[in-house]
Amino acid sequence: MTKTFTRSAGRAANQLRPVRITRGFTVHAEGSVLIEFGATRVLCTASVEERVPPHKRGSGEGWVTAEYGMLPRATHTRGDREAAKGKQSGRTQEIQRLIGRSLRAVFDLGVLGERTITLDCDVLQADGGTRTAAITGAFVAARDAVNKLLAEGKIAASPIKDAVAAISVGIVDGVPLLDLEFTEDSACDTDMNVVMTGAGGFVELQGTAEGVVFTRDEMNALLDLADKGIRELIAAQQAALKA
Amino acid sequence: MTKTFTRSAGRAANQLRPVRITRGFTVHAEGSVLIEFGATRVLCTASVEERVPPHKRGSGEGWVTAEYGMLPRATHTRGDREAAKGKQSGRTQEIQRLIGRSLRAVFDLGVLGERTITLDCDVLQADGGTRTAAITGAFVAARDAVNKLLAEGKIAASPIKDAVAAISVGIVDGVPLLDLEFTEDSACDTDMNVVMTGAGGFVELQGTAEGVVFTRDEMNALLDLADKGIRELIAAQQAALKA
Amino acid sequence: MTKTFTRSAGRAANQLRPVRITRGFTVHAEGSVLIEFGATRVLCTASVEERVPPHKRGSGEGWVTAEYGMLPRATHTRGDREAAKGKQSGRTQEIQRLIGRSLRAVFDLGVLGERTITLDCDVLQADGGTRTAAITGAFVAARDAVNKLLAEGKIAASPIKDAVAAISVGIVDGVPLLDLEFTEDSACDTDMNVVMTGAGGFVELQGTAEGVVFTRDEMNALLDLADKGIRELIAAQQAALKA
Amino acid sequence: MTKTFTRSAGRAANQLRPVRITRGFTVHAEGSVLIEFGATRVLCTASVEERVPPHKRGSGEGWVTAEYGMLPRATHTRGDREAAKGKQSGRTQEIQRLIGRSLRAVFDLGVLGERTITLDCDVLQADGGTRTAAITGAFVAARDAVNKLLAEGKIAASPIKDAVAAISVGIVDGVPLLDLEFTEDSACDTDMNVVMTGAGGFVELQGTAEGVVFTRDEMNALLDLADKGIRELIAAQQAALKA
Amino acid sequence: MTKTFTRSAGRAANQLRPVRITRGFTVHAEGSVLIEFGATRVLCTASVEERVPPHKRGSGEGWVTAEYGMLPRATHTRGDREAAKGKQSGRTQEIQRLIGRSLRAVFDLGVLGERTITLDCDVLQADGGTRTAAITGAFVAARDAVNKLLAEGKIAASPIKDAVAAISVGIVDGVPLLDLEFTEDSACDTDMNVVMTGAGGFVELQGTAEGVVFTRDEMNALLDLADKGIRELIAAQQAALKA
Amino acid sequence: MTKTFTRSAGRAANQLRPVRITRGFTVHAEGSVLIEFGATRVLCTASVEERVPPHKRGSGEGWVTAEYGMLPRATHTRGDREAAKGKQSGRTQEIQRLIGRSLRAVFDLGVLGERTITLDCDVLQADGGTRTAAITGAFVAARDAVNKLLAEGKIAASPIKDAVAAISVGIVDGVPLLDLEFTEDSACDTDMNVVMTGAGGFVELQGTAEGVVFTRDEMNALLDLADKGIRELIAAQQAALKA
Repeated sequence: MTKTFTRSAGRAANQLRPVRITRGFTVHAEGSVLIEFGATRVLCTASVEERVPPHKRGSGEGWVTAEYGMLPRATHTRGDREAAKGKQSGRTQEIQRLIGRSLRAVFDLGVLGERTITLDCDVLQADGGTRTAAITGAFVAARDAVNKLLAEGKIAASPIKDAVAAISVGIVDGVPLLDLEFTEDSACDTDMNVVMTGAGGFVELQGTAEGVVFTRDEMNALLDLADKGIRELIAAQQAALKA
Repeated sequence: MTKTFTRSAGRAANQLRPVRITRGFTVHAEGSVLIEFGATRVLCTASVEERVPPHKRGSGEGWVTAEYGMLPRATHTRGDREAAKGKQSGRTQEIQRLIGRSLRAVFDLGVLGERTITLDCDVLQADGGTRTAAITGAFVAARDAVNKLLAEGKIAASPIKDAVAAISVGIVDGVPLLDLEFTEDSACDTDMNVVMTGAGGFVELQGTAEGVVFTRDEMNALLDLADKGIRELIAAQQAALKA
Repeated sequence: MTKTFTRSAGRAANQLRPVRITRGFTVHAEGSVLIEFGATRVLCTASVEERVPPHKRGSGEGWVTAEYGMLPRATHTRGDREAAKGKQSGRTQEIQRLIGRSLRAVFDLGVLGERTITLDCDVLQADGGTRTAAITGAFVAARDAVNKLLAEGKIAASPIKDAVAAISVGIVDGVPLLDLEFTEDSACDTDMNVVMTGAGGFVELQGTAEGVVFTRDEMNALLDLADKGIRELIAAQQAALKA
Repeated sequence: MTKTFTRSAGRAANQLRPVRITRGFTVHAEGSVLIEFGATRVLCTASVEERVPPHKRGSGEGWVTAEYGMLPRATHTRGDREAAKGKQSGRTQEIQRLIGRSLRAVFDLGVLGERTITLDCDVLQADGGTRTAAITGAFVAARDAVNKLLAEGKIAASPIKDAVAAISVGIVDGVPLLDLEFTEDSACDTDMNVVMTGAGGFVELQGTAEGVVFTRDEMNALLDLADKGIRELIAAQQAALKA
Repeated sequence: MTKTFTRSAGRAANQLRPVRITRGFTVHAEGSVLIEFGATRVLCTASVEERVPPHKRGSGEGWVTAEYGMLPRATHTRGDREAAKGKQSGRTQEIQRLIGRSLRAVFDLGVLGERTITLDCDVLQADGGTRTAAITGAFVAARDAVNKLLAEGKIAASPIKDAVAAISVGIVDGVPLLDLEFTEDSACDTDMNVVMTGAGGFVELQGTAEGVVFTRDEMNALLDLADKGIRELIAAQQAALKA
Repeated sequence: MTKTFTRSAGRAANQLRPVRITRGFTVHAEGSVLIEFGATRVLCTASVEERVPPHKRGSGEGWVTAEYGMLPRATHTRGDREAAKGKQSGRTQEIQRLIGRSLRAVFDLGVLGERTITLDCDVLQADGGTRTAAITGAFVAARDAVNKLLAEGKIAASPIKDAVAAISVGIVDGVPLLDLEFTEDSACDTDMNVVMTGAGGFVELQGTAEGVVFTRDEMNALLDLADKGIRELIAAQQAALKA
């Protein structure tokens, strides 16, 4: 590919931003992780509650769900506070549903038992990729919460079947890029969010053409990038969990 | 592929349900289309208003947006009426945002001028695939509305650059299937909604693993099915528009 | 009466618009009726649920209730979607309360037993008289739902004591008219909605002076018209139920 | 009529409860009236604002509207506060729309000019007939507000064309009664609210069968009662306005 | 103190407005008190319900809570009706929480038993000091409700441990004043609401500088005024309860 | 004072928890401060917008306001997300109104000019004293935002007249304590929040008796503690601003 696009900080097209995963960022939650993809910073907490929503009562199965929020000044210009407006935007709901589905994909809800793990993903600072950082960080928080349940003897085996992580990819000025930051995300022709497991299976795939449609070949180039990025994220998760 | 799965009405794995497109289904809207994918029936109306939302005012550009609803008893068991509950579900918001993006992908908003086309997609009867039927039907309604603007001399050229249609594909019991009906959708391992243009470019791609992750090969098999289905839908749109 | 007012389609002052009642319009509901009063088209579904609202629990009695909605582009200009606005208008609430009371007037709730029949009346196309069409169609849907309960042996006798139907009457340019269409409704001095049973008793009577008050004589002329119209509607219901 | 029904306080079937109208009950509003129908007490204030709602802007016409509320403990058992619940009930909306229409029926909005009169009717104590007391009291408050506008020279002539008052009538144990109190209202077979002008024209007529349908003869008996009651109420309004 | 400030009606700086307490103002509530601080008039009702909110269920203890509202035209210019707006303002919530805490401070919830007393404080006319009048009047209403419970034998001893009353104090043009009326409240540099018991203990103290901060000496001067005023209010409560 | 109460970490009764103020905690806001009072951590951002709310338009004056939130798992057990519930609690509204008033007390809104500074105070981790930490941190964020306006030449002089800080004090087991942490706050008889300026004037004073009323002497002891604490906080603010 002869196209060129200069990324900030001399980043290569197929390079992730620096990933930092800080466990135990706050003290009350069963799992609490600050994840950073470059300047994007998301606080992911996992809360365990010994009850399940109505559709799971008496089923013997647990539930894993997520909520997403963004602090009003996580962004360049201040956004309205959703609590003050009295409703969550469609975008917020889309994202929190995506995080919940992604995490449930690696959980055996029967092994979890009738309890709920809620993953709260709150964006402290946004620079693109907040939903993919949220999924990647929420997995680590969920692992910490599960380890606590195991240590307390509340469950005998881990309900987590595999790791899960997510990354964005996109085409900017014709160049496929891994892990878009805000300025790239705003400029891109195609934006795709990919969620994969440690074993390399797809959990979610959401591609959107912005202005220019994309071809099968372009999609394949993006998926190759995403595959590489997610392997690195899963390695980062493992490293953080061993620390 | 040696796997087998018996579909209702003897349908082949790569076969669409019967598609019916009825233009002029109601009389007031600038475009009004009843689209049926088998037992799924969605009323799509296109309304033209000579004003734009705040973010487009003074831009010289128009706007295309969508709203989606389902009648309470469109489904097997009665669902709560969203107007009575006082809010639209996350699912509803996801779908209407998807329809809006899909239609905007084939519109030149500058050629449209400072006016809004709103596509209301209301499900009268649901049997799987309501969002893909909605996108496919909304395109026909949008064409009728644009033709009315042209006939009235309000615009000199059509702002519509290409056709757009959508279909669902999924893997049920290991078999890739085109155009899932409700029982298949409930049983599937992977569910993917694909939105493509007449020229064959991707507009949106949303794949979700339900329980079992999917591989790149499976995804490619699904996209082949989707490609075939969308070509047929676009032919059905053209036929309806010529009628 | 020497006054004259030319109605569309050469309709006489005491003549209903063509009434069409289509049973089984959609497949999932226990009763599903499309009713048309001329260009007014309302889809009425009856849903049976084996539970009752709190005020009827343990009473041995059932409940009959109604909800009303209008698709955004059922009208000449697009109306806001109530689900998107987050609340039902006062007009919507008035109408759905009226439909519910009208249907309950012919039900023996003790014979129904502890179950609820919900009548959803959704206007697909509006040209005046949507609430009266809704009541008239909802009765047919309710009959179909009750017949299903009888056929399934869930109830031993019908809880329906009589038929019920409704019509609007009004005075336009001094002329009493039966079954107002939209342009007549907008122009009328007095508008009255009348709900009556098959036996000819009044269930509801709602008359409103628009600009000019009305006399007892005018009211009597209107009630004579309504009486005639409702007899014809009840005949149309019976014919549809026999079909 | 040989039927008998013993009313509280030895009241005759065609007798109003004692009516008391206290002008200037509170000091800030342009009109402020406490109206009592027996134990029912409603505070009606008329507020003048020098602006009109959007649909009247630039029309040269004013607007008259009403809001209705009931203090939580106006009734035998405490009702939820609508402000705390976050929405007005369907009943509240029905009533305030009725009050607004009734008052507008006697207003010439062009003579009023581009200003709004809002009639707030708040029930301090309820014993049946709150909406009819509200209409009857709101008229007096509106007159006081109009007189203030005249005195200040803001309008040259009164926009009020006639008086308006309202009363309930109903059939209890087969006996037509005037001005139902709470226990009668709860027991009645038919309940009708009648709004009439000083000249004796009908403004609104709302009759509802509760359990037993009603005949044309019964309706005529009720209207005769209402006519008598409203003449007395209009006399009471005139007396209060002269005081 | 050589500063001077002329109060309306020749009131001294340390003088309350005329206080009137009318018990039994409405008939349905277990306690119903109209309290007037000059032109400020608040209707306080106490409602007893034989159930408690979730956090008290099974505790053996009761609950005392308050709700506050202001009629739209209690003020010089009409305020929006909170029920119509669909939410209570922050000011309303602050005030009703303050009333509830103040009353609970003198209640032994264990002696009350598992029942709830709700104090509804609705401002009919406002001229400053509505929250302090509300607390002072609510105490009398609560006493009446408790006396009713005692008379009915539902409780053996009174759960009320002491009286409670409240007053505002503030500094206007450098002069500390007792019981601010509206014009003083609008002009004041410091505004303080003080809630005290009959025994002279503080229950709540809320002081706010409006524009100019206040010193410890000023605060002490204000508390001296408040102490005097509250003694007089408690005497007025006792007198009303003996009447 | 001979009473004793053992505080965690050997803290003296009149000792603040360790205070840490981190400026520039996030990058987008004009001021961004993480403030920590022991384990309580609040992110305070100041956002400048070149517009004012309606009540200030055309006044030549600016506005300073605050919003407050708490992440769902800032606390020991997960709290509901207010954005998901669709409304802010009374507690949240009380706190954000307090923060706004406190900051406005040290601002000259005329010097600020027609622009708004919004202080978002979001609690990342809670251990008592979140509102006092929020006020203290918000002041530093506001200073940074003002310095940015000065540096950009948008204002010629600082609109900030003095520093402002806040602290809680309370009586636990009879002992007056400075800067209550969560376990102390839960156990205290009296809880007081004090807001003071650098010059030592009171801005806000909110004392609440929890169970046991408090005397003037106790209040004075608490104010002495608060005075000491606020002097130290203001020193910490100055130190942070010099760093």
